[in-house]
Amino acid sequence: MFTGDLLIGAKAVHGTNGEIYGLDAATGERLPTSFGGATKADLEAAAALAWQAFPLYRETTLEARAAFLETIAEEILAVGDALIQRAMAESGLPRGRLEGERGRTVGQLRLFAAEVRAGRFQDLRFDAADPERKPAPKPDLRLRNIAIGPVAVFGASNFPLAFSVAGGDTASALAAGCPVIVKAHSAHPGTSALVGRAVQKAVAASGMPEGTFSMLYDSGLEIGQALVADPRIRAVGFTGSRAGGLALMDIAARRKQPIPVYAEMSSINPVLLFPHALAARGQAIGKAFAGSLTLGAGQFCTNPGLLLAVDGPGLQSFLDAAGEALSAIPAQTMLTAGISKAYATNRAKLAEHEAVSLVAEGLGGNASQGRAALFVTSAAQFLADHALQDEVFGATGLVVRCADLRELEQVLDALEGQLTIALHIDEADEADARRLLPTLELLAGRILVNGFGTGVEVSPAMVHGGPYPATSDGRTTSVGTRAIERFLRPVSYQDLPESLRPAPIK
Amino acid sequence: MFTGDLLIGAKAVHGTNGEIYGLDAATGERLPTSFGGATKADLEAAAALAWQAFPLYRETTLEARAAFLETIAEEILAVGDALIQRAMAESGLPRGRLEGERGRTVGQLRLFAAEVRAGRFQDLRFDAADPERKPAPKPDLRLRNIAIGPVAVFGASNFPLAFSVAGGDTASALAAGCPVIVKAHSAHPGTSALVGRAVQKAVAASGMPEGTFSMLYDSGLEIGQALVADPRIRAVGFTGSRAGGLALMDIAARRKQPIPVYAEMSSINPVLLFPHALAARGQAIGKAFAGSLTLGAGQFCTNPGLLLAVDGPGLQSFLDAAGEALSAIPAQTMLTAGISKAYATNRAKLAEHEAVSLVAEGLGGNASQGRAALFVTSAAQFLADHALQDEVFGATGLVVRCADLRELEQVLDALEGQLTIALHIDEADEADARRLLPTLELLAGRILVNGFGTGVEVSPAMVHGGPYPATSDGRTTSVGTRAIERFLRPVSYQDLPESLRPAPIK
Repeated sequence: MFTGDLLIGAKAVHGTNGEIYGLDAATGERLPTSFGGATKADLEAAAALAWQAFPLYRETTLEARAAFLETIAEEILAVGDALIQRAMAESGLPRGRLEGERGRTVGQLRLFAAEVRAGRFQDLRFDAADPERKPAPKPDLRLRNIAIGPVAVFGASNFPLAFSVAGGDTASALAAGCPVIVKAHSAHPGTSALVGRAVQKAVAASGMPEGTFSMLYDSGLEIGQALVADPRIRAVGFTGSRAGGLALMDIAARRKQPIPVYAEMSSINPVLLFPHALAARGQAIGKAFAGSLTLGAGQFCTNPGLLLAVDGPGLQSFLDAAGEALSAIPAQTMLTAGISKAYATNRAKLAEHEAVSLVAEGLGGNASQGRAALFVTSAAQFLADHALQDEVFGATGLVVRCADLRELEQVLDALEGQLTIALHIDEADEADARRLLPTLELLAGRILVNGFGTGVEVSPAMVHGGPYPATSDGRTTSVGTRAIERFLRPVSYQDLPESLRPAPIK
Repeated sequence: MFTGDLLIGAKAVHGTNGEIYGLDAATGERLPTSFGGATKADLEAAAALAWQAFPLYRETTLEARAAFLETIAEEILAVGDALIQRAMAESGLPRGRLEGERGRTVGQLRLFAAEVRAGRFQDLRFDAADPERKPAPKPDLRLRNIAIGPVAVFGASNFPLAFSVAGGDTASALAAGCPVIVKAHSAHPGTSALVGRAVQKAVAASGMPEGTFSMLYDSGLEIGQALVADPRIRAVGFTGSRAGGLALMDIAARRKQPIPVYAEMSSINPVLLFPHALAARGQAIGKAFAGSLTLGAGQFCTNPGLLLAVDGPGLQSFLDAAGEALSAIPAQTMLTAGISKAYATNRAKLAEHEAVSLVAEGLGGNASQGRAALFVTSAAQFLADHALQDEVFGATGLVVRCADLRELEQVLDALEGQLTIALHIDEADEADARRLLPTLELLAGRILVNGFGTGVEVSPAMVHGGPYPATSDGRTTSVGTRAIERFLRPVSYQDLPESLRPAPIK
């Protein structure tokens, strides 16, 4: 099924820098196959191939590149159920979720294929010459976006398919014309192997230069860091912890030639509960919230971890309903033992916090499982301790009880940048919500009404981004077609004779 | 004519943190009026006003904002010849150049007005809802770009009009919907005062919120640095030295919320002289080069400071012609005494460098004037000393004699990022030039043929940017309509009821 090899261009090479094993997320037991960690020499080989591939790959025709992305999608589907089974074992995520995630991954590749074919991302511009213009003749100027260079993509723990080897970052970088070197996440090496092989096959089948794609395992942090420092790497895509993202940003900024790091790091995705909505349907919102909070064991970047609610009987209905729903929700296997342990620790910290009370918790489980929980605090107490804004990665939410909308606004003003902000409103809340909108726009990349941020549409109008520290660069998105912009830069061509012009600006 | 005051919103306040005087660039004598440096309290007042103005200003209609930009242009023209006279005195630049620069400044404002009216920069996107979609209904998603927030603009020494108070950075930030706080360049406080008053008048006449524009003088570095550190500032535009740009980037990166710094820092704008072009018209190219090198005393970001030439009789014709032309060129008054002194020092360093020989120099002048010079070295010697890549700000060029195109390519591979690269080619050189193009695209933001980079068209297809260290962010341009993108970020709106939707996405 797989060999545990690094994929370096067209080759498969067993790494000799330590061993990585896929672990069954539920039991902690080793799964078949040992994966060899990459050495510096392996990284050098992959980077050299990527650099060789770059001038060829970035000038492939739009049609050839689009077809290549579609071939990757087909090759992933061709792996069949083995992919789902291995991903289930390595991630502890259920079949339905992973089948959906595979659909999303394949759909994403096809969406970028369509985006490449449409060609708008090139932003072709033509300013005609005017030799007669006074005082100086006007030159012929043509602009196009070109690919930025080879991109390092770090697989995410929480999306073993949709944000890993052939996930959003890889799809958008390849669409832009950038070769990709993936650092596979060590929590799902087997899933990565299966997808990596699918991409490698697609490279060969599509006649792309072999260095278009490589995939490395890293038994520590060394190879990932060296990848970001490599002068041939020109951008980085990362989804993970704030500490991890900041470390990569730091390496990238200290290079001789600094490069952009697109890190999606942490967000607690505030949910604003307005008084009329709470009064009218506090119960229904509470029940729906419990479902969103515990989806995928709460391991989504868009998980609703913070609720700002105007106090009153409606809030009590909300808390009662959310609490009742939560109490019946079984503990769920988390992605890794480390994540499960960190979740238990951070959840316990909240539970022991003197300013915080437990509303309800889910059913208990074993050490690899996360138990859902909902806590409540007051606005004053929330404002007094900045640590209450820290993300608890998992199915834990904190309700901030606000006396009125004015106090809710004070809490809003103290928040850091977020991926999403959700508003629950009734018609009678709309005027207040409208007034808050300008504040919300500065806080988040996506604003949504009467829903929750989980479930991120892959489409042209999606923004999965947001001001720092939600991401390292709030001017971009990592989901949706605009993600391609992150891997492009504009070049202007002045008075080039026809024979010198690259095809798109001829 | 002017009072020497800071412009803080609608007010004029005399700063009490030191005094700044405009100096006659030619004589070093103090010009009338003392300008008071801003205190921290002045900065606080300007930042508070900008933050207040922001939610209002960014939601002005496209028509109102466009008309405002046009009013600024009219108010600048209404200052009349006093502006040209003061700018001539403060910068030492001749009337023709400054009249041209005023035209460019006004044209730039009008171009951005047209760009605002066209509205494309908003990138409005609509993904229709589909409540019937399985497995999950599709939400209504709408995207628009919003203004990033108040922007700090640092006036440039070398463009007292086109890249200062109401220059490119200010025009593009205002066009995007961002209030602007200008840190006036201390080399042209009077010019800044006249333009600043024109903008202030336009703000009032157009009914914009007063915090839309403020202008501060800084008697040291403290206020400029505090401006970049201020949490209400969300982006920085800067044109100047590499040391200055790096210092601002460092402050911006260490903020609690890091912000983008768009710094245009240094470039030596390589000119590649191909063998057939040299053989056919080495003399003509040499003469034209001397003109470009000495334009504006060589004080352009796009000044051709480095020539990579294939050796042969053609190169000798080039050197002879360029030398002959240079020898007749009078020394020119430089922008400031500091710039003139730095130029003399850096020029002397080159002259004394053992690997470098003088080809020719211009006529001598006084201490405030720069004397043009052309030097030559070999490829091997150039490659052996990285300091030979340092920008000499002024009319000095260095020719690197390459044995053949292969050696020229080796030199290219050692170069840092540039704003422009110019190629001089004949038809017989085109195949070789075509082969080099992919390398050139990665090195520079603009590639031009049979011309020089001086003379930067303000138009949709212009890129005045380039890989680090030419700029801090090679994904953007500071000239041309795409400059507006630097001050925008996307926001996605999901399932908002009509009453909540901002006007553009209704």
